[in-house]
Amino acid sequence: MNGMKSHKWSRGVAVVGAGMSKFGAFADKTSRDLFVEAYQEMKSSVDKGFDPDRIDAFYLGNFSSDQFEKQAHLAPILASWVGLSPIASLRVENACASGGIAIRQAALAIASGEYDMVLVGGLEKMTDLDISAVTEALATAADTQFEIPAGFTFPGFYAAMATAYMAEHGAPREAFYHVSIKNHENGALNDKAQFGQTIKQIMESKKKRAEEKGRPVPAWQNEIEFLSDPKGNPNIAWPMALFDCSPVSDGGAVALLVAEDIAKEFTETPLYLIGSGQASDGALPDRETLASIPAAEAAARQAYAMAGLTPDDIDLAEVHDCFTIAEIMATEDLGFFPRGEGWKAAMEGKTARDGEHPVNTSGGLKAKGHPVGASGVGQLNEIWKQLRGVAGERQLQGNPRIGLAHNVGGSGQTCVVNIFEKRD
Amino acid sequence: MNGMKSHKWSRGVAVVGAGMSKFGAFADKTSRDLFVEAYQEMKSSVDKGFDPDRIDAFYLGNFSSDQFEKQAHLAPILASWVGLSPIASLRVENACASGGIAIRQAALAIASGEYDMVLVGGLEKMTDLDISAVTEALATAADTQFEIPAGFTFPGFYAAMATAYMAEHGAPREAFYHVSIKNHENGALNDKAQFGQTIKQIMESKKKRAEEKGRPVPAWQNEIEFLSDPKGNPNIAWPMALFDCSPVSDGGAVALLVAEDIAKEFTETPLYLIGSGQASDGALPDRETLASIPAAEAAARQAYAMAGLTPDDIDLAEVHDCFTIAEIMATEDLGFFPRGEGWKAAMEGKTARDGEHPVNTSGGLKAKGHPVGASGVGQLNEIWKQLRGVAGERQLQGNPRIGLAHNVGGSGQTCVVNIFEKRD
Repeated sequence: MNGMKSHKWSRGVAVVGAGMSKFGAFADKTSRDLFVEAYQEMKSSVDKGFDPDRIDAFYLGNFSSDQFEKQAHLAPILASWVGLSPIASLRVENACASGGIAIRQAALAIASGEYDMVLVGGLEKMTDLDISAVTEALATAADTQFEIPAGFTFPGFYAAMATAYMAEHGAPREAFYHVSIKNHENGALNDKAQFGQTIKQIMESKKKRAEEKGRPVPAWQNEIEFLSDPKGNPNIAWPMALFDCSPVSDGGAVALLVAEDIAKEFTETPLYLIGSGQASDGALPDRETLASIPAAEAAARQAYAMAGLTPDDIDLAEVHDCFTIAEIMATEDLGFFPRGEGWKAAMEGKTARDGEHPVNTSGGLKAKGHPVGASGVGQLNEIWKQLRGVAGERQLQGNPRIGLAHNVGGSGQTCVVNIFEKRD
Repeated sequence: MNGMKSHKWSRGVAVVGAGMSKFGAFADKTSRDLFVEAYQEMKSSVDKGFDPDRIDAFYLGNFSSDQFEKQAHLAPILASWVGLSPIASLRVENACASGGIAIRQAALAIASGEYDMVLVGGLEKMTDLDISAVTEALATAADTQFEIPAGFTFPGFYAAMATAYMAEHGAPREAFYHVSIKNHENGALNDKAQFGQTIKQIMESKKKRAEEKGRPVPAWQNEIEFLSDPKGNPNIAWPMALFDCSPVSDGGAVALLVAEDIAKEFTETPLYLIGSGQASDGALPDRETLASIPAAEAAARQAYAMAGLTPDDIDLAEVHDCFTIAEIMATEDLGFFPRGEGWKAAMEGKTARDGEHPVNTSGGLKAKGHPVGASGVGQLNEIWKQLRGVAGERQLQGNPRIGLAHNVGGSGQTCVVNIFEKRD
């Protein structure tokens, strides 16, 4: 299986290193600190040794450091910060898909012949602003003429999609809880994740705290009861409650991409980028349905065609679960399950680590955290670890060989899908 | 002369269409309106007919619509606005170099084999904010840890460069006035320019107004006297006065790029992108000199090497004259004149339309306007017109064949240089 056979790129691209900072809320760190944290881990991940002098360019995915930190023009500043000036350095911005787009654009630049080695970064430092300012900054990722005037912010957009999905496919709200429970279980095994606790642990600690404070102890017997109770899981925008929403996060992630023909100079087990697709869409009112993300379907079609693969060939997927409904739609948009059956698959455990289509083994945006511009490159970090067999306690069994990353921007105006392969 | 012979791109890239809005201050227009204005002109510029269905992707250069209009994630929104969804759409941001970077990245994507036709846009709508908010937004393009805390905003950075240049090379302040006078003369012949008046016309109208209001009429006998008088030309940040500074502007520009091998399907006179280079740098305190922009020298070196050209082969150049000192440094960084002699060349008229190195025939950022993300694509629009012989009253004589665009971001953290050729 060789991606080169079925697509138009003039040469192939491979990943030979990856690293990420811990995701979370770090009042004492700047985005430069988080970037360095990721960069340092990447350096030590290059099996046969890292040589910064071979880096030709730097592609940064970042949503809005200008709003979050009053710092635009971030790419050359970061390049200088880690000693890489005067390499070509640029920022790409496609809202929460900025990281995945940076990976794809860096790959195209290598495929063109212009560069042999490109550093890709994803970065966001969101927690310096108060939460209402964060909400306002994130709202700029929506359409200010057609979406925002309707009174929505992002939880509202995805709540509307969830409502449409429930109405169209008869899904119960409980289906969303299963996504959250699974992703927290995976995130609890990921030391880079913002949330290190399972939903069960969170529930038990809330009960314990109530007991300690002498308040009535909630009667939750299991996670579903906990998540069904607005006292445990308050509504944000019905049917999206607190544990349906990814958090506000700080974090950085990087990956080192090279031309396929030199990959073995850096490691015996590079990951080859065998499929890639990108598509766009208009605002929500333009769409025929709210129960799927058409740009994701289109991007996935391109990526599968380039790779010569079908959804059943994918061993693991990191998908854009900014809200739990988004993961369920993603598993349908990517073709893992038939339209309208993603919710059943979630309830039946088919997306768990031991299921037929493992999804978000990292904990996903929900538990790992969602520093928006970093998320797409964070997804690649998980695929890097899983395919190379170094994902620790959450490692998939059975020697996974093909991983897919699905990164969405806005309410679905952008989607990028990248597919990576380990070859034996 | 064929760029393909001397560089690594797997296939060549050509420009087959270009268009731009008028640049200026338009309280009644949104960025979407300005984009449509540019897009419509581009459509009618494609000699053998424009077919939107052949566009594979859209690359947008935009500095900060999130700060200026509360609208991030602008690329897919604009693509939808002109009916191009679901094509891959992305924004690149490198401060005031965003437009030139968008051209280069679109070209690399074509060179990779992934796309055959890419729409490139540059856009900024700056005048909706009041001037102090604009200054603050622009300041995010500087380094917030090392430049901004020193108390500078952009006129200050370039004033520091101008001072260093004057000290190092003995240039008088009058040299800057000559840049301004020339660019206003060129801009007065450009119906897309924000300022349609020469400095002489501005001077005369100020004298006339004084006379009409019964105030003492200034004794200015020529433009130099006018520009030397703080009553005519107030200081902004010494030695940069009002007429040394490009304005705050609204504007959009687009270009249509295709693979070289299909260019003749669209026009018999495409412009071939024969050279391209991009480089980065750290903040001002990191540099050995303030009297040049090292990233510009590096980008130019790459572009000349790719094209197999020397500075003397360039028939016209659009350079990044955000301030007059920037044009003088650019003419040295690009190798048109020896280091330290750009100021003399400016005073001697060597960069005028009939000079040995015509620079900013469009009026430049100074007179044409500087809607920051649009400026790089606006430069390509001028080269498109001049090389195809349709620049009207400001048309260069002698059948110019090679044009160069030089686009700088921040205080020089980014520079991109693109060279275009008309072949007979």
